[in-house]
Amino acid sequence: MSIAWTSRYALRTKDIKSSAIRELLKITQQPEVISFGGGLPASDVFPVQRFEEACRRVLAEKAVMALQYGETEGYKPLRDMIARHIARYGIQARAENVLITTGSQQALDLIGKLLINPGDRILVEAPTYLGALQAFNAYGAEYVSVPCDEQGLRTELLEVPLRFGPKFMYVLPNFQNPGGTTLSEDRRRVLVSLGNRYGIPIVEDDPYGQLRYEGEHLPPLVVLDRENVPHDSGYTLGNVIYLSTFSKTLAPGLRLGWVVAPAGVIAKLVQLKQGADLHTSTFTQVVAYEVARGNFLDEHVKQIRSVYRERRDVMLEALRQYFPAGVKWTYPKGGLFLWVTLPEGADASKLFLEALKQNVAFVPGDSFFPSNEQGPESRRHLRLNFSNARPEQIREGVRRLSVAVKAHLEQLRVAQPS
Amino acid sequence: MSIAWTSRYALRTKDIKSSAIRELLKITQQPEVISFGGGLPASDVFPVQRFEEACRRVLAEKAVMALQYGETEGYKPLRDMIARHIARYGIQARAENVLITTGSQQALDLIGKLLINPGDRILVEAPTYLGALQAFNAYGAEYVSVPCDEQGLRTELLEVPLRFGPKFMYVLPNFQNPGGTTLSEDRRRVLVSLGNRYGIPIVEDDPYGQLRYEGEHLPPLVVLDRENVPHDSGYTLGNVIYLSTFSKTLAPGLRLGWVVAPAGVIAKLVQLKQGADLHTSTFTQVVAYEVARGNFLDEHVKQIRSVYRERRDVMLEALRQYFPAGVKWTYPKGGLFLWVTLPEGADASKLFLEALKQNVAFVPGDSFFPSNEQGPESRRHLRLNFSNARPEQIREGVRRLSVAVKAHLEQLRVAQPS
Repeated sequence: MSIAWTSRYALRTKDIKSSAIRELLKITQQPEVISFGGGLPASDVFPVQRFEEACRRVLAEKAVMALQYGETEGYKPLRDMIARHIARYGIQARAENVLITTGSQQALDLIGKLLINPGDRILVEAPTYLGALQAFNAYGAEYVSVPCDEQGLRTELLEVPLRFGPKFMYVLPNFQNPGGTTLSEDRRRVLVSLGNRYGIPIVEDDPYGQLRYEGEHLPPLVVLDRENVPHDSGYTLGNVIYLSTFSKTLAPGLRLGWVVAPAGVIAKLVQLKQGADLHTSTFTQVVAYEVARGNFLDEHVKQIRSVYRERRDVMLEALRQYFPAGVKWTYPKGGLFLWVTLPEGADASKLFLEALKQNVAFVPGDSFFPSNEQGPESRRHLRLNFSNARPEQIREGVRRLSVAVKAHLEQLRVAQPS
Repeated sequence: MSIAWTSRYALRTKDIKSSAIRELLKITQQPEVISFGGGLPASDVFPVQRFEEACRRVLAEKAVMALQYGETEGYKPLRDMIARHIARYGIQARAENVLITTGSQQALDLIGKLLINPGDRILVEAPTYLGALQAFNAYGAEYVSVPCDEQGLRTELLEVPLRFGPKFMYVLPNFQNPGGTTLSEDRRRVLVSLGNRYGIPIVEDDPYGQLRYEGEHLPPLVVLDRENVPHDSGYTLGNVIYLSTFSKTLAPGLRLGWVVAPAGVIAKLVQLKQGADLHTSTFTQVVAYEVARGNFLDEHVKQIRSVYRERRDVMLEALRQYFPAGVKWTYPKGGLFLWVTLPEGADASKLFLEALKQNVAFVPGDSFFPSNEQGPESRRHLRLNFSNARPEQIREGVRRLSVAVKAHLEQLRVAQPS
């Protein structure tokens, strides 16, 4: 007798579908397709020579340590470096407040494991990061969502959903994925203050914070929150868990992210991480430390900013040039994405098929909404990535996409005569 | 107001304690302590030069791919290599049956996520691998356990617990951690046949299978199981999920393990892995592939076997020489561990403190039993690792340990006069 595996799967796996993004990455790998679909950094900015030197030095000087099991918390010099690095943004953390994770995605998974009981509601932005929904879904999360505008999460709409007692809020204040919007400073203060008033923790996801192309850095929520905790000499209190990553500044293939949180929360996450993967690769941690140390990371990020700023500008210019009236898009001051909104009645999933005929790809916006929020309104959007394709590809890709958009809107017009 | 985080934790985190092993790793890192505690491979067998060459080649020839995001399933050439490699043991798999995980520990976590609903019973060996209990506990597992003897799991005791309908069986047939015992071929056949009769899947964990120091390789459960699936040309059916790792053959700091399973089960695990960490480090996968390829892995494993065989023999010899009558231990034909059983009434946790005074460490056996099985009987055991310390340290460590054992048994004798 052979087992019917499907009958054995846990209830929580019922709703878990393969991420559209991941499947897209496969479809759109043909060289003739220009893809705005993934969230891939530009390969040409990877500091390959610096990686070569780092690997050589690590294997010459500390091979045994780098290849052996390590502590679950992560490589201590790397945690110290992160604590020093984020101090410039006013985040006061020590190594004991930092946990290295296998990419930021693992941080989301561990937070889900730590905080979510089946049926718990999580407050998210609409739209929000698809990977977070995926991570939280596995623990039986339900969602309540609050819409965004060009200033980010509309905090004036927060109070009613907060009264329903979400387990925590999950927000991306800087250059949001997928929206490309940035939460204004005023709204940051309102958000933190409401979190405090209602006793609702905030998970602040900040993968792109350093990739700002214009304007001033805004204070992270974790910093504003600590203004409310006057006598905390260590970093033991606070309502915000802060996440970031090396994926956008060094290389995503390392799978290195980190969590900053009160020491007690970190200790609990460490216990969960022991059961999840024992620890993140010692080798990639030690290599990343060697690559990043000294002043290298700062210098390197400057280079990335200049490359991505140009690509963003090319995309914005091409959108203005090619796209028809009635289509809108956000203006990202940093990050990797912008968010296009089609006229009412449009369907980005249908547009996607049209676009593939033109050899251009994007992610339909629908999947960035919790399933209970999906409907005609969520289907009007596209997420476009501008970091991965080269400027001339971006221009051509937007041109191709505009052909598909015009065709789709024309079909709409014919189907619904006024 | 600052949040009381502990009041926010999910119910499932209640029972999760920090692993004794991981905490031990910290206590016993002082140079004067000889540790039989961890499960660490010998650092002197890491193929450092080969890693240097591999890193150089990867960064010269395929840096962009190795540093970029990759597919959740894992690096295709590595999955193909694993499929070829395990074919020698009769395991017929294609790349579609192989998922690369962030160490074997992640495989255990994903399997827990896929199969365990809170309250589900998992059938385990007593004792069993602590890390598996940790992974499964996070999903609310309960346990039913079956004792082992020198031939491994006592399959003649299986039928009653199987009638209680465990969700799956978790077994380590080769050189079990912590027992050091190997499941006999007859018992393997009984186990597989009972799994089939009762429709209970088997998770076969085989991190040490290649590290056999004497005797013949025995057929894996996954192979015996497929003898029951006659017309399965691909690898689509079968009741066994097979796990292994590069941690004991290349280096644990890479965090590279793998799952072999029917394609449908792999597809579901891939979906869960997307939410857990997107994918395992592309860089370590590509480097491991470059290190292992050609005939290197086989040659390297021969060297590891000869180093570990000597250490095992030294430990067995020292135990015979120094340990008092009434103490028993297993004879491992491979792997990294042996299992010591003290006379009735002994308490390995108390012995542990005594041993630390003598500057020698081990893992008290208690933590290798599910919490519902812990009691006077589970406290009589010690797990000793023989792969990490050098031969002269092993001899001296066993001598020190014997001093502690004799003192502990003397205390017992005084406390319980006959």
